[in-house]
Amino acid sequence: MQLMEEKIRTEGKILPGGILKVGSFLNQQIDTGFLRAMGREIARLYGGSGITKVLTIEASGIAIAAAAAMELGVPMLFAKKHKTSNVDGTVYSTVVHSFTHGTDYTVVVSRDYLLPGDTVLLVDDFLANGAALRGLVELSRQAGATVAGAAIAIEKAFQGGGDALRAAGIRVESLAVIESMDGGTVTFRR
Amino acid sequence: MQLMEEKIRTEGKILPGGILKVGSFLNQQIDTGFLRAMGREIARLYGGSGITKVLTIEASGIAIAAAAAMELGVPMLFAKKHKTSNVDGTVYSTVVHSFTHGTDYTVVVSRDYLLPGDTVLLVDDFLANGAALRGLVELSRQAGATVAGAAIAIEKAFQGGGDALRAAGIRVESLAVIESMDGGTVTFRR
Repeated sequence: MQLMEEKIRTEGKILPGGILKVGSFLNQQIDTGFLRAMGREIARLYGGSGITKVLTIEASGIAIAAAAAMELGVPMLFAKKHKTSNVDGTVYSTVVHSFTHGTDYTVVVSRDYLLPGDTVLLVDDFLANGAALRGLVELSRQAGATVAGAAIAIEKAFQGGGDALRAAGIRVESLAVIESMDGGTVTFRR
Repeated sequence: MQLMEEKIRTEGKILPGGILKVGSFLNQQIDTGFLRAMGREIARLYGGSGITKVLTIEASGIAIAAAAAMELGVPMLFAKKHKTSNVDGTVYSTVVHSFTHGTDYTVVVSRDYLLPGDTVLLVDDFLANGAALRGLVELSRQAGATVAGAAIAIEKAFQGGGDALRAAGIRVESLAVIESMDGGTVTFRR
């Protein structure tokens, strides 16, 4: 998506340690005209896939997931993060390792909302090592739902998660794929 | 908003302790057609107020805030919750007491995004005792921004927060105002 690459080039900030700050338009302050454009692009990519539900993890994927779900005309669902692994029988749950924070957290989604007949589109703002996305795939598997694929705003290809998921047979569409940020310059995949 | 009252009556579940579960359409699974309608209603209510930014707190207010901001054609911004009060000079921060969980948490928003010239609309899914909303008012005050008012999906009037804020001179518009849930029956304000 050309517009995403332009936004990253003009508004993104690269910090030491491979961190890309996009808080001005994507995951803290959100440019809503751009949000609508992202929703439309995701709906274009997955419009023929029979999606019945969009699934994300709180918090920063929610706006993008909502915009995509509005364009697709389906409900949007978000998995919640728990600090503890104490969950009850009303939810599906799995443990996700955060490489950023060096900790594990549990993600849960209600059994009432993620259903065996669902064809799910997974949406998130960032895809790096892929741990969060694998968590959403696992929740969908537990529910007996079909995963149509994933739509990601920004993929950091140099962290490998996206290509590993593709190699495992999961369709992953990223609106921008960053191959490297070496020397403070963003290089996109062509 | 008639549609909100209907959704609460038909899909809401009342649990002991004054808890209203609306996870099927509002704050876990989100009905996106309804989300768009909420955004339009909020934009209708505040369309003439010169809003420059919509502000919410993660996580369950994000989708509603995004829908409202899309309709108003302005950016949406969310304050983040921190477990600790350790914050640096790049953010505005305040402490919010959660009556639900009996704990305090710190909410922060970047000084880069909430600006003195902003006219802010505060959006959240629930308004009960008003602690979270007062936190957003305080962050806006620190930034020197003007608060045009608040738009809330569901206000529990029997917990008093909304009327206290109105008495303090803040415009509060709730899409449904619940006067009581006694005996498992929802009574709306007329």
